[in-house]
Amino acid sequence: MSILVVGSVAFDTISTPFGRAEEVLGGSAIHFAAAASFFADVRLVAVVGEDFPQDLLAFLRDRSVDLCGLQRVSGKTFRWAGEYGHNLNEAHTLDTQLNVFADFVPTIPEEYRDSEVVFLANIDPDLQRDVLAQVRRPRFVAADTMNFWITGKPESLRQTLRLVDTLLINDAETRQLANEANLVQAARRILQWGPRALVIKRGEFGALLINDGGWFAAPALPLEVVRDPTGAGDSFAGGFVGYLARTMQFEDTSVRKAMIMGSVMASFNVEAFSLDRLRTLTYKEIETRYRMFKRLAHFEDL
Amino acid sequence: MSILVVGSVAFDTISTPFGRAEEVLGGSAIHFAAAASFFADVRLVAVVGEDFPQDLLAFLRDRSVDLCGLQRVSGKTFRWAGEYGHNLNEAHTLDTQLNVFADFVPTIPEEYRDSEVVFLANIDPDLQRDVLAQVRRPRFVAADTMNFWITGKPESLRQTLRLVDTLLINDAETRQLANEANLVQAARRILQWGPRALVIKRGEFGALLINDGGWFAAPALPLEVVRDPTGAGDSFAGGFVGYLARTMQFEDTSVRKAMIMGSVMASFNVEAFSLDRLRTLTYKEIETRYRMFKRLAHFEDL
Repeated sequence: MSILVVGSVAFDTISTPFGRAEEVLGGSAIHFAAAASFFADVRLVAVVGEDFPQDLLAFLRDRSVDLCGLQRVSGKTFRWAGEYGHNLNEAHTLDTQLNVFADFVPTIPEEYRDSEVVFLANIDPDLQRDVLAQVRRPRFVAADTMNFWITGKPESLRQTLRLVDTLLINDAETRQLANEANLVQAARRILQWGPRALVIKRGEFGALLINDGGWFAAPALPLEVVRDPTGAGDSFAGGFVGYLARTMQFEDTSVRKAMIMGSVMASFNVEAFSLDRLRTLTYKEIETRYRMFKRLAHFEDL
Repeated sequence: MSILVVGSVAFDTISTPFGRAEEVLGGSAIHFAAAASFFADVRLVAVVGEDFPQDLLAFLRDRSVDLCGLQRVSGKTFRWAGEYGHNLNEAHTLDTQLNVFADFVPTIPEEYRDSEVVFLANIDPDLQRDVLAQVRRPRFVAADTMNFWITGKPESLRQTLRLVDTLLINDAETRQLANEANLVQAARRILQWGPRALVIKRGEFGALLINDGGWFAAPALPLEVVRDPTGAGDSFAGGFVGYLARTMQFEDTSVRKAMIMGSVMASFNVEAFSLDRLRTLTYKEIETRYRMFKRLAHFEDL
């Protein structure tokens, strides 16, 4: 099954205690697509500027990512610069140049409109609804958002939430969106607004799922090397949505496995700068790491 | 099997966004003993002042906690005052009056010296070794410590670690003790100093275990009501050590179950101020909550 993803393509400049990378490939749609491409075909809608090298996404095309929806317009590609301290859970933005992303209006190519699975990466909630208005009848819609939209466009975001099956946000955003300090009560409130499930990403502490099957806690793998957390959330989403698109089963058992696949892909993504770890990754390695998560979380009945 | 615990008895004054409690029963030995008493007999060594009401620990005596080792000396009982914001993971100490705890020298009664399981709560590492010198040949020794001793008595702490089977500390303390930002590398370093296992407590994010069976991640139960996190770490230790003392099996499978029992007891403890939730708790409720953790963490193989 094909997944439609709409989000950003960026050049990232990243400093961490473990190194620095200048103008490397990044952006939500890219991190998502790279991870999801291990599980399903991906159709990517995003925008780049004239400065974007034609062959930079060749490795994604080789992995069945359809790039017909990638618009190339005059101007410069979106750039983001950020820095992480030893607390790798938190990025400090040093510079944001939206460039061509500022005027991005997603146009879904005709051949993408039958997509049954849609991931709305973190973009303006107005645009997220524009995307949904252009697709026919997706069976599963997942979305991300961020504090910027929670603060700046709360009403639009609430409208988008009515159309979304699963919202993926971090724990601070969960509390902020619901205006409630207790995570359980915050999650319940958000579920009343539309989504059938909420995925709460917690970085090195793993991720939580709440749906009508109750709560599920996916651990994060303790990693000896974390070089660059950038894109971990979108890699998580790629593994999560990718696995669901591969199986097209959305009951609690499948969604829990998808949560682990999200955690698996995020754990690989942070091991190297940009997408570098995913360039060489094999499906066999993914299966091996899934089994590591199984071992990590396993305990016997009383 | 009987557990010997050596630690503090205190009067706590606690403010959280959900209420306030004045001069309520607290202290590491008390929180530990209350939790552990659901699993095994407990022998408590600690000190209180003349102001400590004789019958305040009657509920513990009723739960097979032996209080012969509780010294009563002239002076006032240890007092601690702290406050929590919406981030319940972090306590802000408002006042500490060590009082009789300042001169505490643990004397282990003759009838306690055959204890096979020992928990050294967070006290001066010199005293922790004094305790071990007074017991004959325990089969299992667990210990806690804190940043104050890591900074103030690093060499003494290292000597204590050589005598300890399992160290239970939080994630910041793990990094601080090992002087290493990466948690995996920090844990490995600490294990080289003596302990066969390290338990890393992470509050609302659960707890990690590392031993020769590798890593185990115990989730924390998402709770709708968290009234008072004080003593959560010692309740965890009580459930953890208590379960091990009940089974006297120390292989990885048992230790993982003990990790969940620790999480279960901590989850109850935070639901009310002081020890109030544990006063009415039943073993049936503990078993039910263990099954909730099983459900919380469960996912299928690929």
